[in-house]
Amino acid sequence: MNDTISKIQPLDQEMGQKVREYIDTLTKPPGSLGRLEELAVQLAEITSAPFPVVSPPGVIVFAADHGVVEEGVSAFPQEVTVQMVMNFLNRGAAINVFSKQSGAAFEVVDIGVAADIKAEGVVKRKVRYGTANFCKQDAMTREDAEKAIAVGFKRAENMIQHGCKCLILGEMGIGNTTPSSAILALLSGQDVSGLVGRGTGIAVEKIIHKQRVIEEALKEREPDRNDPIDILAKVGGLEIAGMTGAMLAAAANRVPILLDGFICTISALLAKEICSTTSEYMIAGHRSVEPGHQKALQLLGKEPILDLDLRLGEGSGAAVAFPILHSATLMLKEMATFTSAGISKE
Amino acid sequence: MNDTISKIQPLDQEMGQKVREYIDTLTKPPGSLGRLEELAVQLAEITSAPFPVVSPPGVIVFAADHGVVEEGVSAFPQEVTVQMVMNFLNRGAAINVFSKQSGAAFEVVDIGVAADIKAEGVVKRKVRYGTANFCKQDAMTREDAEKAIAVGFKRAENMIQHGCKCLILGEMGIGNTTPSSAILALLSGQDVSGLVGRGTGIAVEKIIHKQRVIEEALKEREPDRNDPIDILAKVGGLEIAGMTGAMLAAAANRVPILLDGFICTISALLAKEICSTTSEYMIAGHRSVEPGHQKALQLLGKEPILDLDLRLGEGSGAAVAFPILHSATLMLKEMATFTSAGISKE
Repeated sequence: MNDTISKIQPLDQEMGQKVREYIDTLTKPPGSLGRLEELAVQLAEITSAPFPVVSPPGVIVFAADHGVVEEGVSAFPQEVTVQMVMNFLNRGAAINVFSKQSGAAFEVVDIGVAADIKAEGVVKRKVRYGTANFCKQDAMTREDAEKAIAVGFKRAENMIQHGCKCLILGEMGIGNTTPSSAILALLSGQDVSGLVGRGTGIAVEKIIHKQRVIEEALKEREPDRNDPIDILAKVGGLEIAGMTGAMLAAAANRVPILLDGFICTISALLAKEICSTTSEYMIAGHRSVEPGHQKALQLLGKEPILDLDLRLGEGSGAAVAFPILHSATLMLKEMATFTSAGISKE
Repeated sequence: MNDTISKIQPLDQEMGQKVREYIDTLTKPPGSLGRLEELAVQLAEITSAPFPVVSPPGVIVFAADHGVVEEGVSAFPQEVTVQMVMNFLNRGAAINVFSKQSGAAFEVVDIGVAADIKAEGVVKRKVRYGTANFCKQDAMTREDAEKAIAVGFKRAENMIQHGCKCLILGEMGIGNTTPSSAILALLSGQDVSGLVGRGTGIAVEKIIHKQRVIEEALKEREPDRNDPIDILAKVGGLEIAGMTGAMLAAAANRVPILLDGFICTISALLAKEICSTTSEYMIAGHRSVEPGHQKALQLLGKEPILDLDLRLGEGSGAAVAFPILHSATLMLKEMATFTSAGISKE
């Protein structure tokens, strides 16, 4: 992993400045394309290219299970993780629909589902059969956490080698807002109560139970705030670690990362803890309804592109936001300049 | 025009209810696709179809000039209207880029540019050579305003007959935030000062001058608040009237209207004044930086899809929002149901 981190370079500010100046020569009032202009500059800084390319994007969904679901923290039973993996393979989930809309490459990785998946098409990289219930013991070993990061890293490298120009990371794991909220409480230093939401839709009464589960787990496990691997091992998840690894790979390869919602943003915070420059390669796709997401975005210092009350995960919000990122690059590449179009300036 | 208005029917609430129930059978937690679900329901109500289609969209840009520019209310000289029409024909403007991205049909209509445009490709429907300076006389006659509405109506009908499933209306007219702010002041009953912005980018000092121009014109012209044709004739614009007519045609044909920014939303308010049901066929694409836009959206009762600090016009913000509308329809059409995918419900 140290090899990877050493490859992550600062953004190309000089290229950003060049592109900023070029945008002001395009046939529109200066600044009138607002956020699209900022995105174009950030993409130029990330890719070190005057005309950055984000298409085709690549979508990797990491699937894993969580021992903590036996505490009754989720609206859906654990078997839904496997069932949704099958749905991904049959192209029936939301992320399939939105990936196809943008012509994205797509893969689903079994990084830690609690059952064997025999279907063709799933990328089999199971680190273990789900995490342990972190109310009773560490979610996984430190070695498992590092393995899961390495899996994510390699899948992203593979996606990039196959020509994907922008990485979208999704997750499927019944119960995974619980470890995500635990990690956020730790990283933000905030009280659990303001950070826990309904996940896929638990009843309001159950939220208090979910809070208590998280508070007790943090007290019992005592993860080290300054050691992201320790956090992942004690109260994390395998898909969360996988996404973190994939983000490190994207940054090391100067590929933009389009973030999805709450769980994805928790992985982003951990990637930032491992190597702070990584966060400069990230763009927040949307603001989720899940209350912790707003806090996570603040910690990351990101303003999302969309605010559409989504809370599905799978990478779906990022995939819906992708065409906006694409618009920013097409603006640069295809618009005429005042000079080329022979238009009077103010 | 009365013929048209009589064809505009209320939304199909029953179809909306059917689609709302169908959405809850799709493989995702109920409500988790937020605004996309609401958009899908509205599109079903508009089109009266269980699987509404919005692609391909059609983009019509109406170009016209404004006599009031001689009062020094714009950052750009009047000749830029013609130059930008040429840029549209050469596919170099922002709206060209974003139309192409979504596979939209595109046309630009000279509905009242102050000069002759000899180029091939422009749709020639000039009602007059720009409006008069409404500080000194009415912008146009009542007959001209009705003619311009009819032009917009016919161009939209033509677009729809050629298979476009969603209408995006854009405008080009140096100075057109001034008539738009005047119309908004009248319709909202609010003071001009809070509604006037920098348009394409006038200096802050010039805003006060622009406010005074509008206040004096409203006092001199005395348009009838309850007569939208009188408003258009006295302080309006030809492209504003054209977009209003096009919206009436879309509603009469049960085709969704994706609104752009400030000027387009003023046309929408006038269409609503002519026939209030028309507004049910509208979806707000984005929230513009222009201060009057927020007020106009409130009057129309719409919450925009995007909030990206855009202020370009041409239909560009609507075109950037279009893929989100498309996502909503693809969600309906392509996602598996819990039953078809064999997934356990909560």
